[in-house]
Amino acid sequence: MYTGLDRVRPALMTDLYQLTMVAGYYMNRKHEEATFELFIRSLPAGRSYLVAAGLEQAVEYLLHLRFDEESLEFLRGLPALAHLPDDFFHYLSRLRFEGDLWAVPEGTVVFPNEPILQVRAPLPQAQLVETFLLSLIHFQTLVATKASRVVQAARGRGVIDFGSRRAHGPEAGVLAARGAYIGGCIGTSNVRAAKDFGIPAYGTAAHSWTLAFDSEREAFERYHAVFPDSTVLLVDTYDTLQGVRNARQIGTKLMGVRLDSGDLLDLSQKARKVLDEAGLGGAKILVSGDLNEYRVRDLVDASAPIDLFGVGTEMVTSKDHPTLSAVYKLVEREGPAKVVSLAKLSEGKETYPGRKQIWRSVDEEGAFVGDEISLAEERRSHNSRGLVTKILKRGELEYRFPSLGSVREFAQESLERLPPQYCRLESAQTYPVVCSDGLERRLAETRKEIADLSLDEKRTES
Amino acid sequence: MYTGLDRVRPALMTDLYQLTMVAGYYMNRKHEEATFELFIRSLPAGRSYLVAAGLEQAVEYLLHLRFDEESLEFLRGLPALAHLPDDFFHYLSRLRFEGDLWAVPEGTVVFPNEPILQVRAPLPQAQLVETFLLSLIHFQTLVATKASRVVQAARGRGVIDFGSRRAHGPEAGVLAARGAYIGGCIGTSNVRAAKDFGIPAYGTAAHSWTLAFDSEREAFERYHAVFPDSTVLLVDTYDTLQGVRNARQIGTKLMGVRLDSGDLLDLSQKARKVLDEAGLGGAKILVSGDLNEYRVRDLVDASAPIDLFGVGTEMVTSKDHPTLSAVYKLVEREGPAKVVSLAKLSEGKETYPGRKQIWRSVDEEGAFVGDEISLAEERRSHNSRGLVTKILKRGELEYRFPSLGSVREFAQESLERLPPQYCRLESAQTYPVVCSDGLERRLAETRKEIADLSLDEKRTES
Repeated sequence: MYTGLDRVRPALMTDLYQLTMVAGYYMNRKHEEATFELFIRSLPAGRSYLVAAGLEQAVEYLLHLRFDEESLEFLRGLPALAHLPDDFFHYLSRLRFEGDLWAVPEGTVVFPNEPILQVRAPLPQAQLVETFLLSLIHFQTLVATKASRVVQAARGRGVIDFGSRRAHGPEAGVLAARGAYIGGCIGTSNVRAAKDFGIPAYGTAAHSWTLAFDSEREAFERYHAVFPDSTVLLVDTYDTLQGVRNARQIGTKLMGVRLDSGDLLDLSQKARKVLDEAGLGGAKILVSGDLNEYRVRDLVDASAPIDLFGVGTEMVTSKDHPTLSAVYKLVEREGPAKVVSLAKLSEGKETYPGRKQIWRSVDEEGAFVGDEISLAEERRSHNSRGLVTKILKRGELEYRFPSLGSVREFAQESLERLPPQYCRLESAQTYPVVCSDGLERRLAETRKEIADLSLDEKRTES
Repeated sequence: MYTGLDRVRPALMTDLYQLTMVAGYYMNRKHEEATFELFIRSLPAGRSYLVAAGLEQAVEYLLHLRFDEESLEFLRGLPALAHLPDDFFHYLSRLRFEGDLWAVPEGTVVFPNEPILQVRAPLPQAQLVETFLLSLIHFQTLVATKASRVVQAARGRGVIDFGSRRAHGPEAGVLAARGAYIGGCIGTSNVRAAKDFGIPAYGTAAHSWTLAFDSEREAFERYHAVFPDSTVLLVDTYDTLQGVRNARQIGTKLMGVRLDSGDLLDLSQKARKVLDEAGLGGAKILVSGDLNEYRVRDLVDASAPIDLFGVGTEMVTSKDHPTLSAVYKLVEREGPAKVVSLAKLSEGKETYPGRKQIWRSVDEEGAFVGDEISLAEERRSHNSRGLVTKILKRGELEYRFPSLGSVREFAQESLERLPPQYCRLESAQTYPVVCSDGLERRLAETRKEIADLSLDEKRTES
């Protein structure tokens, strides 16, 4: 497993209330095991499925979670925590993640309410990690999902992530590149992502290169002299078609041209003609500039002679829907005698109790026909295997991470098995997901327990 | 200056084309000074001004920019660069940022096309840093701007950043907390941001705390026992008003309650009544849950008895507009004899040439009445001072960073001086920004030079 991003003190990258709750659990000696599930509540209008991503970084975080001296010193001085006894901070200094983790493998196609990740650990540990896990899984899943839509729209033409500059900070650019690759992109412009994750890196030159020379022709010649075998020229600095004509001078070594503005359909057709007439049929056309899945689809539908799409801002920020309703909910805890199932019942935010499994039905051709969410302990008679897999056991890795390339392939295969009506870009149908009878029974029982509890509280009110 | 985030190898957090261009400039011995400007091209419909943020991290990046051995080893093996001679990689190993930097101070209110940051350095250095600088400045400016709208809507009630879990990765959560604080929030839930930037940290407990006990009353008592002086109770796990009634047991030590779901206007009124009738007039009401500037405004307009707003997802992702058209454009370079002004003229993406200054006019009360963008070398007869300030000179810090608290105050004062018609939440007018005659003349000259150049190229076409 490769570390990816370098972080000092990830333990502090959390919400303060995780730490006050950890303190509260510690002071009340509540170290019983609790189970939390991370899932997406519902999908925004422009999405019909999710591509799960971010697990490898989540595991890395759990395996390296600890508070160093500098962090502890800071926490001791925080107004909210300063009154707590020394033994609490000593407890924090020894705190490690010692729990179990289950998850769907990265690249799995999932739907609302299906668990992407499950943590079972002593209550304080399971609580502390919420913010960081949500942050990692939510963002990469968001981008992998968006990217898969762009890739679908490109119908076989390559899509490259060009988004780093407008991602939400430098780290977001690196994580977005990873999510986009899982979602089906062929590579990224982000060099750090190329290094850390082995993603193919793409990139040639910007407008400033052309502007840095006294003429466009000179700029093109000079670029070719340095990169004779990878000459892709950006041709729209002054006049796009004049730029294409200037690019012809490179001859058959010209690998391609990039169009970054204007009417991309019209310009790509004219550029193709100029190149073909010059005998440069092998030169590719790459386009970029405010692209998304809809613009890519329109260009492909119009048979624009485009070989590659460079997609940036809209993909790495998932611009139409820059967030998903990702939550991390307590679903089960050890009680004094039995395991108590939990469900939050506040308006519009109900949660199904208990740790769960996902069962996916496929037809004879392997196409997905529907999912059932059951309690984890429910068994299936036939030979089916649930999608949720054990990753960590008592803080130790039990899972072998596939290469990122395999994750990407797995995502592509899964998306191919999702029938078109459930994944088309617009007006997709809702994929059928049902809850098992066992799960529905558990919810009804939990509701009843809570109603009884609530009644008790009203009776004992002062 | 405090380092903020820990990064190893930020030099690789860039687009590959920055490195191919650096190689191209190096191989062509193009080390002449070039000036780039970072600015926002235009504002989306829901914005009428910008709060500049991110400068301190940008400077930190420039001061620490270098390629370590591991990075160089990776670059040597990259297909795009592998053919380049050893002396290029040796050059990279010695590369430091030795240029000049100008910027508007953080917290400055700016408008489209006004320079937020300017880099003048040898061409390869100035080029290399584009991606990282854009990523830092764009994101913090985006969040500071969004947060300032939420704070404006809250009309004096405190706004706290609760967004870390749905920010675009863990680092984005920390940077968003900083941007939100500059934009006027009173604090953040993010502990790392509290430590690195000295932002006040807020937070109490989540639903899982309540679910972890056998009853809500027990959960509340236990919380109060551990945090007797900061007992804010989340009351909506089961039934919100019953929760408020359960919270009364704490007595006058109850600091407040938090409502996180349901009809926040109705529930806050009823909760206030329950609390007041119990003699708990001092207990505050904090609300959270999918808030943005419009919902906050509606609650305040309806006189909801709310003391504090916890705002998360929509603020830290700037959900309605998760991106701004931030660009970094070459505007000037040293030519053999004179300084050449540059403008990219491709369709819809024109750039004004030359390094610039911003002059802000104020009326007798100090209110902003309009800006003029001039060439940097243009002087003003009266005693006015331009907004753009020198930050680095030949790679050395010339600027003393104010505390983040001062930056926040400066932003608040500036926003108060921006007349309401230019900053109201909806249908705001466009703030007047004009270009100086000198700048318009320079653009006309540059257009002509480019037209001549283009004509020359057409003449010499093969």
